[in-house]
Amino acid sequence: MQRHLAERYGRHPAVVGFQVDNEFGCHGTVRCYCPNCREAFRGWLRAKYGTIDALNAAWGTVFWSQTYRDFGEVELPHLTVAEANPSHLLDYYRFASDQVRAYNRFQVDLLRDNAPGRFITHNFMGFFTDLDPFALAEDLDFAAWDSYPLGFTDLMPLPQEEKVQWARTGHPDVAAFHHDLYRGVGRGRFWVMEQQPGPVNWAPHNPSPAPGMVRLWTWEAIAHGAEVVSYFRWRQAPFAQEQMHAGLNRPDFQPDVAFFEVQRVAEELSALPLPPAGCAPVALVYDSEAAWVFEIQPQGAEWNYLTLVFSFYSVLRRLGLDVDILKPGADLGGYGLVVVPSLPIVRKEALEALSQADGLVLVGPRSGSKTENFQIPPELPPGALQALLPLKVVRVESLPPGLLEEAEGPWGRFALGVWREWVETDLPPLLRFTDGGGILFRRGRYLYLAAWPSPELLFALCQSLAEEAGLHPRFLPEGLRLRRRGPLVFAFNYGPEVVEAPAPPGVRFLLGDRRIPPHDLAVWEET
Amino acid sequence: MQRHLAERYGRHPAVVGFQVDNEFGCHGTVRCYCPNCREAFRGWLRAKYGTIDALNAAWGTVFWSQTYRDFGEVELPHLTVAEANPSHLLDYYRFASDQVRAYNRFQVDLLRDNAPGRFITHNFMGFFTDLDPFALAEDLDFAAWDSYPLGFTDLMPLPQEEKVQWARTGHPDVAAFHHDLYRGVGRGRFWVMEQQPGPVNWAPHNPSPAPGMVRLWTWEAIAHGAEVVSYFRWRQAPFAQEQMHAGLNRPDFQPDVAFFEVQRVAEELSALPLPPAGCAPVALVYDSEAAWVFEIQPQGAEWNYLTLVFSFYSVLRRLGLDVDILKPGADLGGYGLVVVPSLPIVRKEALEALSQADGLVLVGPRSGSKTENFQIPPELPPGALQALLPLKVVRVESLPPGLLEEAEGPWGRFALGVWREWVETDLPPLLRFTDGGGILFRRGRYLYLAAWPSPELLFALCQSLAEEAGLHPRFLPEGLRLRRRGPLVFAFNYGPEVVEAPAPPGVRFLLGDRRIPPHDLAVWEET
Amino acid sequence: MQRHLAERYGRHPAVVGFQVDNEFGCHGTVRCYCPNCREAFRGWLRAKYGTIDALNAAWGTVFWSQTYRDFGEVELPHLTVAEANPSHLLDYYRFASDQVRAYNRFQVDLLRDNAPGRFITHNFMGFFTDLDPFALAEDLDFAAWDSYPLGFTDLMPLPQEEKVQWARTGHPDVAAFHHDLYRGVGRGRFWVMEQQPGPVNWAPHNPSPAPGMVRLWTWEAIAHGAEVVSYFRWRQAPFAQEQMHAGLNRPDFQPDVAFFEVQRVAEELSALPLPPAGCAPVALVYDSEAAWVFEIQPQGAEWNYLTLVFSFYSVLRRLGLDVDILKPGADLGGYGLVVVPSLPIVRKEALEALSQADGLVLVGPRSGSKTENFQIPPELPPGALQALLPLKVVRVESLPPGLLEEAEGPWGRFALGVWREWVETDLPPLLRFTDGGGILFRRGRYLYLAAWPSPELLFALCQSLAEEAGLHPRFLPEGLRLRRRGPLVFAFNYGPEVVEAPAPPGVRFLLGDRRIPPHDLAVWEET
Repeated sequence: MQRHLAERYGRHPAVVGFQVDNEFGCHGTVRCYCPNCREAFRGWLRAKYGTIDALNAAWGTVFWSQTYRDFGEVELPHLTVAEANPSHLLDYYRFASDQVRAYNRFQVDLLRDNAPGRFITHNFMGFFTDLDPFALAEDLDFAAWDSYPLGFTDLMPLPQEEKVQWARTGHPDVAAFHHDLYRGVGRGRFWVMEQQPGPVNWAPHNPSPAPGMVRLWTWEAIAHGAEVVSYFRWRQAPFAQEQMHAGLNRPDFQPDVAFFEVQRVAEELSALPLPPAGCAPVALVYDSEAAWVFEIQPQGAEWNYLTLVFSFYSVLRRLGLDVDILKPGADLGGYGLVVVPSLPIVRKEALEALSQADGLVLVGPRSGSKTENFQIPPELPPGALQALLPLKVVRVESLPPGLLEEAEGPWGRFALGVWREWVETDLPPLLRFTDGGGILFRRGRYLYLAAWPSPELLFALCQSLAEEAGLHPRFLPEGLRLRRRGPLVFAFNYGPEVVEAPAPPGVRFLLGDRRIPPHDLAVWEET
Repeated sequence: MQRHLAERYGRHPAVVGFQVDNEFGCHGTVRCYCPNCREAFRGWLRAKYGTIDALNAAWGTVFWSQTYRDFGEVELPHLTVAEANPSHLLDYYRFASDQVRAYNRFQVDLLRDNAPGRFITHNFMGFFTDLDPFALAEDLDFAAWDSYPLGFTDLMPLPQEEKVQWARTGHPDVAAFHHDLYRGVGRGRFWVMEQQPGPVNWAPHNPSPAPGMVRLWTWEAIAHGAEVVSYFRWRQAPFAQEQMHAGLNRPDFQPDVAFFEVQRVAEELSALPLPPAGCAPVALVYDSEAAWVFEIQPQGAEWNYLTLVFSFYSVLRRLGLDVDILKPGADLGGYGLVVVPSLPIVRKEALEALSQADGLVLVGPRSGSKTENFQIPPELPPGALQALLPLKVVRVESLPPGLLEEAEGPWGRFALGVWREWVETDLPPLLRFTDGGGILFRRGRYLYLAAWPSPELLFALCQSLAEEAGLHPRFLPEGLRLRRRGPLVFAFNYGPEVVEAPAPPGVRFLLGDRRIPPHDLAVWEET
Repeated sequence: MQRHLAERYGRHPAVVGFQVDNEFGCHGTVRCYCPNCREAFRGWLRAKYGTIDALNAAWGTVFWSQTYRDFGEVELPHLTVAEANPSHLLDYYRFASDQVRAYNRFQVDLLRDNAPGRFITHNFMGFFTDLDPFALAEDLDFAAWDSYPLGFTDLMPLPQEEKVQWARTGHPDVAAFHHDLYRGVGRGRFWVMEQQPGPVNWAPHNPSPAPGMVRLWTWEAIAHGAEVVSYFRWRQAPFAQEQMHAGLNRPDFQPDVAFFEVQRVAEELSALPLPPAGCAPVALVYDSEAAWVFEIQPQGAEWNYLTLVFSFYSVLRRLGLDVDILKPGADLGGYGLVVVPSLPIVRKEALEALSQADGLVLVGPRSGSKTENFQIPPELPPGALQALLPLKVVRVESLPPGLLEEAEGPWGRFALGVWREWVETDLPPLLRFTDGGGILFRRGRYLYLAAWPSPELLFALCQSLAEEAGLHPRFLPEGLRLRRRGPLVFAFNYGPEVVEAPAPPGVRFLLGDRRIPPHDLAVWEET
């Protein structure tokens, strides 16, 4: 099939490029438990480990008498009576992600052979961790993603009152987070392949975007570096599964609300010269494997990798800072501040990159807590990171909702829950629980956070570090976000009230002005 | 088996009639996914569509490349990776309901051949929509249903404090709603086949009815036109699955509480001449297919057909109005007010009946929003209803819990959630959201409601319309309900306090008097 | 396999005894639905009933036309369209428990043959009712159990604020309850085979025990009669499924916190002469079959056997009383107070034991409500208990959360929910609902409680009965618990505040003193 498509349309003059497949992994399709996948997984293990003894050692199968005699004895890790071996699960999740990458590569190869000069991309999804987009995108020309701010907000683990607050705008960091993530995935280049143009059909609740939001989302994508913003869909189809998914045009062939907002952006865009987007001052290290490790072994029901990452990201953005999202091992040179919300498995290249970072480096809890084989490092967590942070995590605990521990330090008092670590070190803690346990440790430009941070603690900490790094953080109003593209500063007002643009006196506004209405934006030039 | 039963007992002198089967559909037995049903479904589709091209067009299978080449390729709509095609689902739900009807018909035919002169009925269930009772009952002499007010109330989507409030009485509209529904299903004739006589065994909680409630429920059934009220069961069986289900007699052969309440009704009944029940002044249009459409495509997690229907019914009853529940297409002549909570698929006969209605007609949200094939009508919703209501619904949205929009109009201010529509029309709105969007539109005697109504809005609206129709609505105390049978007025007090009967001065009380004790009733004559 | 182990290690000089298998029933392994078990179940039924007619009569299969013609027609009671016959379920649960016992016996027999002079035990679990530990332990030398106070507390049906309150200590009655239960199971002898030594890995939340708790738990086990307290595990394994389960030693071979607490207990223990533990003054009758009956037929969603038993136990312990937990039929001689939270099936030996009890006997709701075949007794509940308590329960009801009925009596006013019974008797009620219904009845030393008791009612009632029995109850501070071993009194402070030991003036403290710090204990001698 793919071959026929590639041969028939690859050189068609009207075709400038290809999106391979659609939203890889949607509807739980990364991890499959069929006999074919079992065979493929056994082959993958054989290639990785060589001998069954090596696998037994790596997985620690001596525990619970699960030693294998042959690769043919290894089953897929599901429908087990007790929980499956975590190393087994992690290898399976790696294998499943690899399989999707291989399937993409198979299609890409067909297109490279038959569609010379055409770009190839794929539309990734939001808040989705079953596959490693950084790896898959190595075979693409650039990344793309599908932006549905309202549905994502309805599905996020937010308190209901926040879901209501952002029901018609989306949470102000949701789209930006993914722009920055997929810009990293696309090695600096990304598209929004599907931008929500109105109410959709698939979330538990599907409100109408507030007037102006389709324009705002479009401009925001551009400010974050999107080369193209495309809308799903052109016209609302009156039949089949997605008939309740709005388009730029209505089912009766009339333009819908978003049509005019997009038209306006097109006009505005033609009048606004766009400088290239440079590097951000802050880097956030994001790791699909971390998501798998914590999915396999949360150890506390509330521990969730995306929640932790998003809280770091959101705090940085609320402080007015631009963020690049990078995979472990990416070059961290030039960043004033690097945050690593959590990196349980620290590979050699990740350690090197962190060692060579120029800026302050804040490392979150459970970093370095596992070897590549999903074992506790012999030197205890944070394992290899002890080269940078000479401390040992000797005990960890997860806390039930409502159990908060008091912390005290130079930035005030905080009540912390979810997760706590006990640390042995000669470093003096910068922040302590009232029972004396250390929470924050620092050596040189490296900091280790030994607890799940509350937003209040994250604000205080990131603000302090950003100031030290000379990044001039400022505490923005709740619904306001900034993004720079060269000398241009974009300000987006997600809130329901007029907000004053935090622009220096006398700057030139290229779009809007100092008084930003609700669900609107302003662009000015700073020198 | 059935044949043997019919042959053996059909002409038995002690047998006056037959109840075919028991509670068709109980325990999820309408929709089956076995290979036999797959074959039968394919045959049903072949008979309906003739050609596979016609099916493809009707279902819009071109979407997601699901075009079929042959009826033998059509699977049952379950265990799909993504959601099934909604037209496919709707046809399957229709087929499944048809199958039950055919199975009933098979048994009815055996009985008609072997049991001359015996009546045939079936005992339908409460709050159950998997099958269309109006269609099935065409093959019966009359309808019957099984009335369990306490269990139904425990399972209704009510706030917990309301469940507690009505735990020993049942919600005051639950039994009445089903009496009126099954009277319609039975073309004016119905029985209560199983009346709860005490605590039962199958609900999450099984309280004892308040003293007097078995008498009240029995009288209420009679007031609504029941020809027989029968109790399940005569004696509580001390063994097997339903051993905790009370009867009129205890397991030790002694009469239980309900025995004496029923005895009292029998005495009272013999002294009270019952005039025939005429038509009610208000008609409510109820559609099983509507329940299926919204089950397939709720579009908002809180949208539920029965909830909407019940809220219309309950408001009308609280206003002291009697209600007939009719299927779409039934003759609406003579009704002062017709309410259509929602009718997504408007067939020709339904449109004709609405066109020929004599009274005011209130049509609720999402009416006319789908074609018979589950597509958006080319002229946009409300589709064929535009002949009566010249307006177009150009956008809809579902809202998360807690997102309420302010509405303002001649009857006050309302906070509306769940569902909102955007309407294009030349009709001036009678009620608006504070952002200007219209909520209620009227042309002549037809009204369209473009939002999910709060109870407050429904009260105001139905009261106003009932007054305009000359139906003299009155706002009854919370636990009081009225029902007329010819000149007789029955008043039922579900509440825990004495209530004064809303009877004109000087009327003659045939049962009780003006001061109605808790869980009791009064009957008087109005001329 | 087992034979090989027994032959190889049975007489090994380093092996002093055997623990058969591990936590029988963990991960839902008691009840199996495979074809082998189906055949075995049919054989079990054949052996029990002899003829299929006897089975049909016992189960009441005439109901719903489920009469069997042959044992080969009996299926396992699962995947049924409607609920399975309760007698069928109960026999299946009995069979499944018997199967585990037989499997244990098979291993025990191998060891008895091959390991002369070695003890044999098994480590039972907490809050687990799928198997009858009293029956299984008849084949063991003594019982053992696995004590995880924190995880059990996280999984108990407690309000969240209580879970938080006890998150680092465990609920103060959880370990003690199981010590007393398994001491009974072990006919006076038990071990703690696995004592939690730190945070574990399997509960939804896994906090670190408060400093001192491992010592406290260890001493508490000893006070309740444990002959050995062993810890799971010696060293935290850095790999596989339980790598996050703390040990006495850390993964890096360093001693963990608990190591030093255990060391301290060992020292303290060597200085403290331990007298044998005698009988407690209070007996609580515990019945696995009761748990099965109510699991099969809760009749109210909140009815739970363990919850009821635990609330009786907890109230008695809060009153400072020691408790023996015994199976139905065990000798009740010498106990000042016997509580039977609920005993639905009263066998001959249980009735005899109750008849011959010396003390006051408090029998809870639904006792005697079923025959051995899971039928309602012909004489109505409490069935055979009517010999001791001349009353009939003629109606029962379960109540939704929030529906509380007012009760009034000599000990004050109470609001009762969950469950209520209607009783016919000549005995005057000692406590009534405000509508007149009786709640508590007494003849001689026997009392019957016809409702689900609130903790407040249980406190008042147990205190009054204990005083009458001369047991000198005292209302202890929330976190304090007492336990006697001969003349020694142990006091355990689970709370966060210093507590004064309720010791007579002038007593000699063997451990600690009158001022008991948080998470600490004191031991004194009373004469």
